[in-house]
Amino acid sequence: MYYFDNAASTKPAKEVLETYVKVSEELFANPSSIHRFGERTRLLLDQARQQIAKLLHFDAQEIYFTSSGTESNNWVLTGIVEALNERHPDKKRILISAIEHPSMMRQMDRLRKNGYQVDLIPVDSSGVIDVKALDDLLADDVLLVSTMAVNNEIGTKQPMMDIAVELMHYPNIIWHVDAVQAVLTELDSLNNSRIDVLTLSSHKFHAVRGAGILAKRQRVASYPLLYGGGQEMGERSSTENLAAITAMGKALRMASETQVATNERLADFQQRIRFAFQQAGWQIHTPADHASPHILCVSYEGIPGEVLVHAFAEHDIYLSTTSACSSRRHSPHATLRAMGVAEGVSSSAIRISMSALTTREEVDYLIEWIPEITEQF
Amino acid sequence: MYYFDNAASTKPAKEVLETYVKVSEELFANPSSIHRFGERTRLLLDQARQQIAKLLHFDAQEIYFTSSGTESNNWVLTGIVEALNERHPDKKRILISAIEHPSMMRQMDRLRKNGYQVDLIPVDSSGVIDVKALDDLLADDVLLVSTMAVNNEIGTKQPMMDIAVELMHYPNIIWHVDAVQAVLTELDSLNNSRIDVLTLSSHKFHAVRGAGILAKRQRVASYPLLYGGGQEMGERSSTENLAAITAMGKALRMASETQVATNERLADFQQRIRFAFQQAGWQIHTPADHASPHILCVSYEGIPGEVLVHAFAEHDIYLSTTSACSSRRHSPHATLRAMGVAEGVSSSAIRISMSALTTREEVDYLIEWIPEITEQF
Repeated sequence: MYYFDNAASTKPAKEVLETYVKVSEELFANPSSIHRFGERTRLLLDQARQQIAKLLHFDAQEIYFTSSGTESNNWVLTGIVEALNERHPDKKRILISAIEHPSMMRQMDRLRKNGYQVDLIPVDSSGVIDVKALDDLLADDVLLVSTMAVNNEIGTKQPMMDIAVELMHYPNIIWHVDAVQAVLTELDSLNNSRIDVLTLSSHKFHAVRGAGILAKRQRVASYPLLYGGGQEMGERSSTENLAAITAMGKALRMASETQVATNERLADFQQRIRFAFQQAGWQIHTPADHASPHILCVSYEGIPGEVLVHAFAEHDIYLSTTSACSSRRHSPHATLRAMGVAEGVSSSAIRISMSALTTREEVDYLIEWIPEITEQF
Repeated sequence: MYYFDNAASTKPAKEVLETYVKVSEELFANPSSIHRFGERTRLLLDQARQQIAKLLHFDAQEIYFTSSGTESNNWVLTGIVEALNERHPDKKRILISAIEHPSMMRQMDRLRKNGYQVDLIPVDSSGVIDVKALDDLLADDVLLVSTMAVNNEIGTKQPMMDIAVELMHYPNIIWHVDAVQAVLTELDSLNNSRIDVLTLSSHKFHAVRGAGILAKRQRVASYPLLYGGGQEMGERSSTENLAAITAMGKALRMASETQVATNERLADFQQRIRFAFQQAGWQIHTPADHASPHILCVSYEGIPGEVLVHAFAEHDIYLSTTSACSSRRHSPHATLRAMGVAEGVSSSAIRISMSALTTREEVDYLIEWIPEITEQF
């Protein structure tokens, strides 16, 4: 199997899965239990929190474990927005970049129903946030700005430092960064003290599924999304998924340690894949100069993306139409559309996404098949 | 280690953990991906849904996978209540039994803030819902009634059939049952067509942590709690935690198949443990005649529950003050308090909770230590 759908989900690393199993078998007590067995699980939870905090440049008490990136993003636009608005009832505007994940975008109706004004921050033709446009949208009545670190559909890195600089003029505006696709190769871009809130998702960086992170500076007011036993410093209830959290800590450390090498290797792979598609007459949508090397978006005009996906799958190559989270629900290709790409082109787009486990052999195999598959059309 | 804190969390069964690992390793694609590898994961997800539906006497399209019991309970009192209220703006009353889990109770403030009237259904002195009192509270302005199947602190089975009969007079009232503690020994009590919504939690029946179920009849209107990629028939977004869901399906099947034998074995164990505590002068709070055999609540007046827990832990026996979900947050013992037990007694209460994996040898060991530990006080 030649797996190029890592932006949808990565394979859990062997060592990470081993950690998961070990913790599940040996430390299955509830971290809220006061006996010594519970204490041991609590200790491990604290360790994971400290380790992750350090890697993300937050304090340990600012790391909250959730069940997924989707949950983290929903928490931001419910509990956090609500608490912020309670402190600033006059502020009712929220800025969201036009290329955010559905877990942000599909909350807009709920926000508007609750009296908020949601404005989209446009992107330019290569899928990068228009910082000038952001500047125009910014004002004192803005409560929260939400942007991605790396786009999930075409892989563009967003101008984190430029956005931070803009936001320096508005210290009270909360900046949320969806960093779900940034962990494998762009972890460094998150080392930015202006970021107030950060979303991560375990299964995008070789951890097991079912864990997420919301890193949130202490100054950010918030209400819980999930009420109950008062876990996670009272802010996110539910018995802590210790095995998945510990595994996630390990995967994040591995991602951090191998970051430079992974980035370099994937950049080489992407360049070669990009060239092969170009040679075969495909259109390339991922800009060469400011994108994460693990995602490449290309299209072959006139052929629906689904047909292209199936054509590659015939040869045991698994890639996707732009985003898994919208592919089965037939959403339009939101990012390409925001970039101004015509519907006729964007509907013919596919995404090739790699991971830290992608090998040279897999890349060679893919490249070998590109001309032959293209010829079918 | 002698583990008697299973109501807080159970150990994942060996076979269940094996299933988890196998799925994580082999079927790590995103079920939303349209390629054949994604299709295979989707197929497994559908199978798990069908299997679980059958065991719970719901239709497959009525089973929604969540991340936990807490999430399921939060969904009920947010998205479901909101959608129901939109259809019946005149109905603003919600009835919750006085002994519900914190994941229900701690949502009351949010409900009241949103204009709902929440009334508590009282329980009698043995911790069983007062059906007569429920009858008095019921009226046409009630939107939803929420009760437990088995109480998590003292183990009382609630009179499911009597409640169902009461609710037959009010076909439009939605009945939610928190069945988190009912799976190991009282699965049959959930075979009740009057139940509209059901909450389950994976880690209470030997599945791995991080999965929950909300079973919800098709007629129950609802909004999502989590918005995003539109997974779970559009009602609960987030990439499906397939490995944990499949493992949960297996654990539920095992619980169902071994139910009668487990119940019988644990009933014998509980009787013997109960007798040993009685002989040593402890007060027993779990009624002998209508409780699940896996939970026993006892107290030794004058000694704080924490001290008792630590005394047993000295001998490698792990049990808990009533509920893990409130034990570290120093909440009062809600169920005992609702039963009218004096604070001086309830603060001296501990919970002994067993599972399908509890052995005769563990029980003998516990019983052996009861007189000696008691003598210390």
